[in-house]
Amino acid sequence: MKLSLKSTLIGTGASLLASTAMAQNLTLQSAFPFSLEVIDTSIHRFVEDVATATDGELTFTPYDAGSFSPPFEIMENVGNGSLDAGWSAASYWAGQIPAAALFQSIPFGPDVPKYLSWLYGGGGLELWEALYAPHNVVPIPCGSMISEAGGWFTEEITSVEDLNGMSMRISGLGGEVISRLGVSPVSIPAGETFLGLDTGRIGAAELSFPTIDTSAGFFEVAKHYYFPGWHQPGSLNELLVNADVWAGLAESQRLAVRNACSDLSIRMFAHDMQAQSAALEAFRSAGVTVERFPEEVLAALQLATEEVLEEAAQRDNDFADVIASYQNFSERYDEYRELTAF
Amino acid sequence: MKLSLKSTLIGTGASLLASTAMAQNLTLQSAFPFSLEVIDTSIHRFVEDVATATDGELTFTPYDAGSFSPPFEIMENVGNGSLDAGWSAASYWAGQIPAAALFQSIPFGPDVPKYLSWLYGGGGLELWEALYAPHNVVPIPCGSMISEAGGWFTEEITSVEDLNGMSMRISGLGGEVISRLGVSPVSIPAGETFLGLDTGRIGAAELSFPTIDTSAGFFEVAKHYYFPGWHQPGSLNELLVNADVWAGLAESQRLAVRNACSDLSIRMFAHDMQAQSAALEAFRSAGVTVERFPEEVLAALQLATEEVLEEAAQRDNDFADVIASYQNFSERYDEYRELTAF
Repeated sequence: MKLSLKSTLIGTGASLLASTAMAQNLTLQSAFPFSLEVIDTSIHRFVEDVATATDGELTFTPYDAGSFSPPFEIMENVGNGSLDAGWSAASYWAGQIPAAALFQSIPFGPDVPKYLSWLYGGGGLELWEALYAPHNVVPIPCGSMISEAGGWFTEEITSVEDLNGMSMRISGLGGEVISRLGVSPVSIPAGETFLGLDTGRIGAAELSFPTIDTSAGFFEVAKHYYFPGWHQPGSLNELLVNADVWAGLAESQRLAVRNACSDLSIRMFAHDMQAQSAALEAFRSAGVTVERFPEEVLAALQLATEEVLEEAAQRDNDFADVIASYQNFSERYDEYRELTAF
Repeated sequence: MKLSLKSTLIGTGASLLASTAMAQNLTLQSAFPFSLEVIDTSIHRFVEDVATATDGELTFTPYDAGSFSPPFEIMENVGNGSLDAGWSAASYWAGQIPAAALFQSIPFGPDVPKYLSWLYGGGGLELWEALYAPHNVVPIPCGSMISEAGGWFTEEITSVEDLNGMSMRISGLGGEVISRLGVSPVSIPAGETFLGLDTGRIGAAELSFPTIDTSAGFFEVAKHYYFPGWHQPGSLNELLVNADVWAGLAESQRLAVRNACSDLSIRMFAHDMQAQSAALEAFRSAGVTVERFPEEVLAALQLATEEVLEEAAQRDNDFADVIASYQNFSERYDEYRELTAF
C-alpha cells in the first residue's frame, strides 16, 4: 500500500455514506495500463456509462496502472479502503487465494459466453462473492477478453517432444500446465519479450489475442503463431468495490454499475470476435504461419491440465468447491451446446 | 389497432416530454403471453431494473399479449403512439418488412453470442435501426432465446425422403425452407398441436427449447425429439420504443433501458443454456429418443436455406443489405471461433 488515497485526495470516508443516492466520486485504480487500446476504451466507457446512468450522482475517477497502488496490491487496497474500487484480473490474487485464478480463466475451460452462463446461471458468481467477502471486497464481472492465441514460436511444433527444454513467456495455471511437458515458463515484461525471442533466450511467448499481439511486434521475430489459446479460452475482468462503499451506494447506483459491466462484457466480446481476421491477415502478409497445435500436443496439454486442477483442488478446499461447480455446470452446458451445434 | 391507450389510459403525450429526467410511465405491450414462465420472469425483471436504475423516474407498465394490441399490430401501434413500447420478435413484421425476419433468427445462422457480436460489433444494430426508422420505432435487442429444438416427430427420420409429404407445425423462414424438402408447414396454435400430433393430422411440430417444450406435453404423443434447431439457432427479442418517446427521454433513462436490455440478454442465455439437461433427462425417462438429424437431412436443409435467403435478397434490397452484412461478419467471426475452438 503506497498511499491512503481516500483520506488525502477524496476526503469522503465510505463509512459516512448513507444508503441514499447522494452524489459521490469513487477512486478506481486499473491493474492494466491505459496504453493498451482495449483497456483505455473499455474503462472510460464504463466510467462514462455509470456517470450518465446516474445523472452524475455516482462518478468514478480512473487511475492508470501503478498510479497509486501496484497492480498486485489493488485488492488489499480496495479491501482496506485506501481505494474505493479496482479494475483487474482475479488471477492476480492466486498467491493468497488460489481459487481466485478460476474466475479469470480456466485452461481448456469456458469461452466468454460460457463463463457468463456459469456466473449468472450456474452459481459461479455467488461462489466468487463468498471467496472475496473475507477480504472486504465485492467482485463484479466487468468486461471480457476473447480467447487468446496459443503463442508465438520461433520454430515449428510438430510433436510434444519439440516443446521439451524450451523456455516460454507464459504465467499462471497455463505456465504450471505446460511445465509438465518440459517447458520452462518464464515471467518477463512484454517489452523485453521481443528481445528474448530475437536472441533465442526464449523459444516462445504468449501475450494476448491478435489485435493486441499486433502492437508487440513478435511477428517480426517469431514466424509460427499457434492456436488455440488453451490456457485462456476466454477471460473476464473484475470490478472490485470496497464492501462498505458498495453497501453505502443506493440500489439505483449499484444497478447502474452492474448493468454497465454487463453491457461492457457483451461489447468487448462483440467487437473483438470479429476484429481478429484483419490482424491475422496482416501477420500472414508478414510471413507468419497461422496454425493449430498438433492434436497430440493439445491432448497432452489437456491431460496435464486435468492433473494440475486436481492437485490444486486437493490442496485447497475453496479451489475444490469452485472447480466442482464449474465442472458440473460445464457438463450441462456442453450437452446442449453439442446437441444444437452445426 | 384496437385502442388509443395513450390518450385514454395514460394521458401524457410523448410530444409534450422535454429532454430531461421528468418522471414518466410508459405503456409496454408484450407480444408473448405471460403464461410462459420465461416471458413473465423476463419482462418483469426488465421493468423492475429500469424502475430501480432510474429511482422510479422512468417506469413501464407491462401488458400481457393481446391486452390492447393484437401481437401482429404492436409495431404499428408503437409507431403511431397508441403504445409507448412493445416487447416482441422482429419476425412478426416480416410481412411488411421482409428483412425484419433476419433480426429475430436466421436459419443456420447465429447463436445468441454471435448475434450480439454482429449487432454490437459488426454493424447489425445500425441496419436494424435504419430499417425501423420509417416506421417511427426504435429497436433495442432485449432478451434472448437459446437454440430451439429441431422438432418433435411421431416417426423416426432416417433420410430426406422420410420428410416428403409430412405436415409439420413450423413457420417463418424455417417453414419456407423445409417446404422445399416436401414438408407442408402448417400454422396452428400450440394448444391444438398436441391433438394434431396425437391424431396424426401432423407428423411433426416445433415449439421452442426443452424447458419450454416440457409444458406443451408433446413428449406424450411424439417420441422422437430432433436437434439441432437449424431454423432458429438463437434469437433475440426486441424492445420497440416509439421514436418520439425515445427522443424525449433523458440520456440517463435511455441508458437505463439499453443496459437493462443487455443484462437481460446475458441472463436469459446464462440461465437457459444450463437448464436444458434436466428437461432432456425427463423426456428420456418418458421414452423419448433425443437425437440429431441425419447429416444428409441437415445438408439438404442447409442447401435449401441458402436458396431461400438468396431468393429473398433478390426480391428485396433491404433483405440483401442485411444478409450481406451478416455474412461478411460471419466469415470473420467464424475464422477466429474455429481457430480457437477445442
